[in-house]
Amino acid sequence: MKLYDYAAAPNPRRVRIFLAEKNLEIETIQIDIRNNEQKSEAFLKLSPLGEVPLLQLDDGTCISQVNAICRYIEEIHPENPLFGRTALEKALVESSNHQLNMNGIVAVTEGFRNSNPMFEGRAIAGPNSYAQIPALAERGLLRVDHLFRDLEAHFAASEFIIGDYFSVADITAFVTMDFAGWIKKTIPEDCVNLQRWYDQVNARPSSNA
Amino acid sequence: MKLYDYAAAPNPRRVRIFLAEKNLEIETIQIDIRNNEQKSEAFLKLSPLGEVPLLQLDDGTCISQVNAICRYIEEIHPENPLFGRTALEKALVESSNHQLNMNGIVAVTEGFRNSNPMFEGRAIAGPNSYAQIPALAERGLLRVDHLFRDLEAHFAASEFIIGDYFSVADITAFVTMDFAGWIKKTIPEDCVNLQRWYDQVNARPSSNA
Repeated sequence: MKLYDYAAAPNPRRVRIFLAEKNLEIETIQIDIRNNEQKSEAFLKLSPLGEVPLLQLDDGTCISQVNAICRYIEEIHPENPLFGRTALEKALVESSNHQLNMNGIVAVTEGFRNSNPMFEGRAIAGPNSYAQIPALAERGLLRVDHLFRDLEAHFAASEFIIGDYFSVADITAFVTMDFAGWIKKTIPEDCVNLQRWYDQVNARPSSNA
Repeated sequence: MKLYDYAAAPNPRRVRIFLAEKNLEIETIQIDIRNNEQKSEAFLKLSPLGEVPLLQLDDGTCISQVNAICRYIEEIHPENPLFGRTALEKALVESSNHQLNMNGIVAVTEGFRNSNPMFEGRAIAGPNSYAQIPALAERGLLRVDHLFRDLEAHFAASEFIIGDYFSVADITAFVTMDFAGWIKKTIPEDCVNLQRWYDQVNARPSSNA
């Protein structure tokens, strides 16, 4: 297996942290998104949509999308499960992970791609061109403010996203916190419970991945 | 188990079709979203975010989000799997289902909620108020056009979203096609392969759910 990766970007990092939590090391190949290497002829042969991260299996099959890659890894390395241990826990992880992706990763991405001149004409990742929408960049900032408040309330009563169980949903939320810095948003000082959780996750060896 | 449902809305329908494909019948309770019943005191006790669909287990536990509900059902009723049969197939279903949700359900939702006067001040579902963004409504229309073309190309070479295997990703795409009618988008006449797939899925008994 090989992971097509870009060290600076949040979505590949979610996969790297997942792998580190599983104590797995796999070969990574850097695709320089900043210089549009994901649109090179060579890479488009692997991923027609130019998607990074991308997992390539030994037979050449490619899997795109963070959660699809992580689920594949969970299937072939089920020990130390991160998508839940029971039917109910799996459902709660899926639900929270989806909401955190939408209200976290997607919200920051909207804030970033709709304001940074580098993404002019490509406000949505992929082959189609979409103009930037300044109001969407503004809304991204507002959504991150709401997310901080929602997570502060959550962590006042819970160690992790799902009770005392560390899951892939914590990885999504954790990477969102660092990614928010790209639109100059950091955990507000009065969000002490959110900060406690962040420090706890940040102290795990996987956070360096 | 009970499903809090709203017959007219696309996301609850995804769950109902999933249940029908599993040959399961469960009690459903209608929550009239059009009249904001999801924000009633009684419903917010079940779902603090006012989410429909919502699955309530016999012990009172609630599960929100379409894919979380469907995964729970898949876990407790694994026969006739719709999330994939092998590790690889599970990954491919997850990847496609996610992309179809983003490029289909989310794109149409953006088109609809950012243009319909009924959603003024609530362009995103949930407890926080977000202003409508007209440019986002326009972009929704454009994304649906791209989706029709992408699916036409896909179904020229494939029976379903994942080869000859009918999966939850087909349900997501199928519901998107009908939902697109809410923003006056219908499958273009020259998308004959997309139409062939649509007719095939529409002929399944589950499509009436």
